[in-house]
Amino acid sequence: MKNLIVGQSGGPTAAINSSLAGVIKAGVDSEKIGKVYGMVNGILGMLDRQIVDLDNLGNDGAKVELLQKSPASYLGSCRYKMPEMDESVYKKVFEILEEYNIGYFFYIGGNDSMDTAAKLSKYAKEHDKDIKFVGVSKTIDNDLPEMDHTPGFGSAAKYIAATVREVATDASVYATKSVEIIEVMGRDAGWLAGSSALAGEGGLGPDLIYLPEKPFDLEQFYSDIAEKFKVKNHVLIVISEGIRTADGKYICDAVASLTVDAFGHKQMGGTGKILENLVKEKMGVKVRSIELNTPQRCASHILSKTDIEESFNVGYTAVEEALSGKTGVVIAIKRVSNNPYQVTYEAVDVTKVANVARTVPDDYINESGNFVTDKFIEYILPLVEGEIYPEYENGVPKFLILGAE
Amino acid sequence: MKNLIVGQSGGPTAAINSSLAGVIKAGVDSEKIGKVYGMVNGILGMLDRQIVDLDNLGNDGAKVELLQKSPASYLGSCRYKMPEMDESVYKKVFEILEEYNIGYFFYIGGNDSMDTAAKLSKYAKEHDKDIKFVGVSKTIDNDLPEMDHTPGFGSAAKYIAATVREVATDASVYATKSVEIIEVMGRDAGWLAGSSALAGEGGLGPDLIYLPEKPFDLEQFYSDIAEKFKVKNHVLIVISEGIRTADGKYICDAVASLTVDAFGHKQMGGTGKILENLVKEKMGVKVRSIELNTPQRCASHILSKTDIEESFNVGYTAVEEALSGKTGVVIAIKRVSNNPYQVTYEAVDVTKVANVARTVPDDYINESGNFVTDKFIEYILPLVEGEIYPEYENGVPKFLILGAE
Repeated sequence: MKNLIVGQSGGPTAAINSSLAGVIKAGVDSEKIGKVYGMVNGILGMLDRQIVDLDNLGNDGAKVELLQKSPASYLGSCRYKMPEMDESVYKKVFEILEEYNIGYFFYIGGNDSMDTAAKLSKYAKEHDKDIKFVGVSKTIDNDLPEMDHTPGFGSAAKYIAATVREVATDASVYATKSVEIIEVMGRDAGWLAGSSALAGEGGLGPDLIYLPEKPFDLEQFYSDIAEKFKVKNHVLIVISEGIRTADGKYICDAVASLTVDAFGHKQMGGTGKILENLVKEKMGVKVRSIELNTPQRCASHILSKTDIEESFNVGYTAVEEALSGKTGVVIAIKRVSNNPYQVTYEAVDVTKVANVARTVPDDYINESGNFVTDKFIEYILPLVEGEIYPEYENGVPKFLILGAE
Repeated sequence: MKNLIVGQSGGPTAAINSSLAGVIKAGVDSEKIGKVYGMVNGILGMLDRQIVDLDNLGNDGAKVELLQKSPASYLGSCRYKMPEMDESVYKKVFEILEEYNIGYFFYIGGNDSMDTAAKLSKYAKEHDKDIKFVGVSKTIDNDLPEMDHTPGFGSAAKYIAATVREVATDASVYATKSVEIIEVMGRDAGWLAGSSALAGEGGLGPDLIYLPEKPFDLEQFYSDIAEKFKVKNHVLIVISEGIRTADGKYICDAVASLTVDAFGHKQMGGTGKILENLVKEKMGVKVRSIELNTPQRCASHILSKTDIEESFNVGYTAVEEALSGKTGVVIAIKRVSNNPYQVTYEAVDVTKVANVARTVPDDYINESGNFVTDKFIEYILPLVEGEIYPEYENGVPKFLILGAE
């Protein structure tokens, strides 16, 4: 009987451990699988034989549940792209896999991880190795093709929408005019920025949203704010970190010449900070910028139940598909219906997913390019629905930590 | 029968509306009080006769409960310091109070609000006006004297500790060396920075904490980090925004000469950003800084049950004390015992509270000035205990919004 190994790679999300829990649980549930192993710090750790036994964890229901709600990568992570040509790395990988009698290999991660799964399954086929390689996708950015949405996105979107709603109410307590700029993650796709629209209207959410899919124009930006000031005192703006001008320049590069202070010093900081300084100078109102930063991907104290459950199911299905003989695939969430919201989990060719980005479609963004449409809201609403609460110890959420159980 | 009026002032907290709910509920509960009014945007709004009727809200249990969990200032806020001399402002205030037949005046806020309550009660006594003025303190900074802790602090501390724990686990997924710097609020007192210690040890919390109470020395800072690197790969540092050098300079001023780039440009940004750049250059490791920003005071999706309940009680007690004849007082939480944790609510002279700051005591900070002691933890633990969850609508926390009920 063959064994299973699972690893995590790339930047973590609040749901990546729920997918790990799904793989581990399916592994211990199946009578066709021997032991369940985990690679510590991804394939790089595995090459160093950093391999742990996960059977006990998988057989402990309380631990599996706690793992589902724990942020970061329980097994640790790495950033590593399998070389195209260097045969020796592949030989080493398969030597170790054979040493541990591995028949099923699962890699949970983003683009590079899907690339790894693709390359290893190709090598296995070419060299007649009977090991199944299945990718389990994750990214808060929601920018992978071939699937309705990605595991991890719903929880990040929920955190962002909740935080934007809180900041919006906080920002409107004074009678004086003010602008609030919130910078969210998303270098190439505006899914996360758009999700802030869920915070709502009427002072509860953003007035303007700028996504990387549409060229950003500074004069239009000022004019959009001025329009909003005609009807309200507090303007809340959400921007993707990746917004850029029509000629493809990020804001920090595009407006460098404009952001020099009285002494000729260039202003440093993120896109939000740059725009804060520009708007302050241009409009003479109070402006504040907030960069939501890494909590977007690790704030497990507020989770989407839908996301955590689906992420688990994606991991679980990955094992079932491998057992049925699939390899070189990734598990994609497909939406069957929106009302009631229903999804299925399908194995798709991993090469179709690796190294391709999916941006927000045109009809999800308004004509002015400064907000999302109702279609966007309909799409995203089910993904943030439902709550899963942390276990607390000493007033702080409790996590499952490798080696500290 | 006299009426009651209540207002909110200064920067909001996640618990300031729970105190408001306490005042309103006590107002409608009492048979000695006629109507319950609210001033919109504090005393400035009241001077403009922006006054709303709160009786219906107070008689609706579900709304009172929702108000307790809503962030920001439900009634809006202002920043206004009553003039020392200008008699006309006082005349105007009392003219309006008499017009509305007010007998009880409650002002929920920080230092300036306590100053307002102090001045108005003094004026009332000197001019023989039968109106009671009671202050209801709030500040996430926990820096008011005469009380064990301030309403709003516990929820902010819980948010910070939870977020630091999440960021700590997120920051440690890679095997490579890294430094994470988290900047928290607190210009003069390190209560919030210290609260991050609740996140825990063993990679779950901060390795180093710097408070404004102790002089910050850059060379010592580098040496502290180097020491930590001897035993671990990921160093997590929490700093108060208000840390300063032995000669009292904030970091952005103190190290300005050091933070000039190759072109002679001064680096801009907060304290965390400045230290990020310095550590990067000095130690050649990956460094990231995160400024937790306004969510510290408005993140009502994670609340301390203790804090929300106490904040309500402080508001409720304020009304009881006013009814018993007290004026020129503020309601202070006093700790009776720690195990079991028990408090009482006492009226103290508001002039003792206004314009005085309470910093973290010496024996709450370690000798090296780079962490808190067990005494600090014992003190803070009960304040973050217990959870109160939001009501959710469309996957996002629901708030009570003035005019939108």
